[in-house]
Amino acid sequence: MRSFNPPVRTLMGPGPADVHPRILQAMARPTIGHLDPAFIGMMDEVKDALKYAFQTENELTMPVSAPGSAGMETCFANLVEPGDKVIVCINGVFGNRMKENVVRFGGEAVVVEDSWGEAVSADKLEQALKDNPDAKIVAFVHAETSTGAQSDAKTLCKLAHDYDCITIVDAVTSLAGSELRVDEWEIDAIYSGSQKCLSAMPGISPISFGERAIKKLSNRKTPVASWFLDLNLVMAYWGEGKKRAYHHTAPVNTLYGLHESLVMLTEEGLENAWARHTKNHLELKAGLESLGMSFVVKEGDRLPQLNTVWIPEGVDDAMVRSTLLNDYNLEVGAGLGALAGKVWRIGLMGYSSRKENIILCTSALKEIFDSAK
Amino acid sequence: MRSFNPPVRTLMGPGPADVHPRILQAMARPTIGHLDPAFIGMMDEVKDALKYAFQTENELTMPVSAPGSAGMETCFANLVEPGDKVIVCINGVFGNRMKENVVRFGGEAVVVEDSWGEAVSADKLEQALKDNPDAKIVAFVHAETSTGAQSDAKTLCKLAHDYDCITIVDAVTSLAGSELRVDEWEIDAIYSGSQKCLSAMPGISPISFGERAIKKLSNRKTPVASWFLDLNLVMAYWGEGKKRAYHHTAPVNTLYGLHESLVMLTEEGLENAWARHTKNHLELKAGLESLGMSFVVKEGDRLPQLNTVWIPEGVDDAMVRSTLLNDYNLEVGAGLGALAGKVWRIGLMGYSSRKENIILCTSALKEIFDSAK
Repeated sequence: MRSFNPPVRTLMGPGPADVHPRILQAMARPTIGHLDPAFIGMMDEVKDALKYAFQTENELTMPVSAPGSAGMETCFANLVEPGDKVIVCINGVFGNRMKENVVRFGGEAVVVEDSWGEAVSADKLEQALKDNPDAKIVAFVHAETSTGAQSDAKTLCKLAHDYDCITIVDAVTSLAGSELRVDEWEIDAIYSGSQKCLSAMPGISPISFGERAIKKLSNRKTPVASWFLDLNLVMAYWGEGKKRAYHHTAPVNTLYGLHESLVMLTEEGLENAWARHTKNHLELKAGLESLGMSFVVKEGDRLPQLNTVWIPEGVDDAMVRSTLLNDYNLEVGAGLGALAGKVWRIGLMGYSSRKENIILCTSALKEIFDSAK
Repeated sequence: MRSFNPPVRTLMGPGPADVHPRILQAMARPTIGHLDPAFIGMMDEVKDALKYAFQTENELTMPVSAPGSAGMETCFANLVEPGDKVIVCINGVFGNRMKENVVRFGGEAVVVEDSWGEAVSADKLEQALKDNPDAKIVAFVHAETSTGAQSDAKTLCKLAHDYDCITIVDAVTSLAGSELRVDEWEIDAIYSGSQKCLSAMPGISPISFGERAIKKLSNRKTPVASWFLDLNLVMAYWGEGKKRAYHHTAPVNTLYGLHESLVMLTEEGLENAWARHTKNHLELKAGLESLGMSFVVKEGDRLPQLNTVWIPEGVDDAMVRSTLLNDYNLEVGAGLGALAGKVWRIGLMGYSSRKENIILCTSALKEIFDSAK
């Protein structure tokens, strides 16, 4: 068994995205104790910067010490009580996973379904809200990583509130990549990931809970079915002030990386980051269309950071992706579920969203297509 | 907001331990995709090396993508079904946490209590097994991080099996630091942490499940109350073969670090690592006793990697620990729970278990004691 020296890839899949060298270097800084005063100070900065990234004043804004799937589970474990009716909007893999979460925590899932590649339909949601006046929560994915579709979170949240529901929103792929305003859009509970548009290493999940969500959590009649993710306990560690109660050992070096990624986000400015993702999306789109490829998601609903395109007819999916990986060190994403074998998911997230990556990707695809002719 | 440059500490608390520079450097290697063939190969090596560290042939041996508390939760979430009676041996903080886990997953906890600082009593466990013939699981902590006591895992497991119970064992602090033989001792489910005697960064939790545990998992009548930790799903990603099903995004760089720590363990040899921890414990013990300090745990039950000593009378706990941290960049652990303010927990774990650390710690304590006279 020898030390592992990974190949140097360009990551243009659905995440992880390329991690900036500054962030990699931050990960290698000396580990200190998770209760060290110097570490506590850094935690406060991470919390403040996450509030900025989410555009929220929510006090309960912090990173969960595990990947995005655990961020999702944190929302559902804390907010769903056995018997709660939850309307889950499904338009891809991650909506399905939300439903699975509802069921695992004893809730009743009412599904609002849209085709893969489409945004969540506000009309269908409203009908479901009318049909289910006892529903307590609406859950949907803002940026569906399996299809590249974004939904109108502001409208969906307003609808949910009109019918006295709170909202759980998946922003794993949207945070720092496209417009997201937690307070203005009145999102009640939201989770994201570190490895997409924040360009940090995978393994940590920023979340934010607003007043309505905290009220639901505080009024629980049953304990949260998880000790590790119980926010009543986690908050005592991530809360305000010098006196932090030990809960679990935080992933110290991973937090160094997240901190550095947030420093870089504040340097660039959040709206500039959104604009960069849009600009580069348009450049990639022009390149892909010139190769005869077309988008799965209709214009207006497309995520700039995740470009899902139909694989041209007669082109061998697996051959192209393995040639990209082996000859160009370039990773693009395969289709998931119903879209497996039919699409590629080309990510331009965070540090991956760069002109040089666009050139590499379109040039490599052109070479492969040409040589297969 | 600026880049965070942590102070350089010597970590002699209850964990995290000092992370070896080789491991820190490994964390900074370029991130690759979690489904990249190169990554899959590394995962196989991590699994094999963890089998070696645990001394097991268990196929289901892998790291959970979250801290030790989540490793604990993985065991209880998968093995405890609502209504299951679980005998939990409590002799410190982490036994208590096990009980909390049992209750959260709908189990009934029968507590066998021993004083903090003592090993788990086999006699008391046997009595509880006699009194509770319907018990299905026995859970105990091999190495109690809150007190520094180690329990006789082999004897406790044998007893449990005599009464048809399976065992869940906490080895967060023991793995790679003191003798631990999963197969020979017939431990059915075990979890550990990366940040103790493996000297890796915190945030990941090696686990291993044997046949009896897998049988209990397979015979569940209710779904596991967690999507993220459901081993039926996680196994599809960490399982054998080239075809890995996407479950969650693995913490790629953290796994680089764990891999490197396991390379170093195989270089040193497991039994040599155990012997080093014992040798250094004896040296530290001599130094601490020469300063008039005595151990909380009786000889024979002491963990070599975690030395819990009474704070000498008249000595100010907080002053000493803050002086150690501020003037010597040295972290030692405070007492937890019933032992708060009364003891220090001095860790000699993994890379922290070095002669130079022993000299620093005993010399610094001597200087502080002398100057306070």
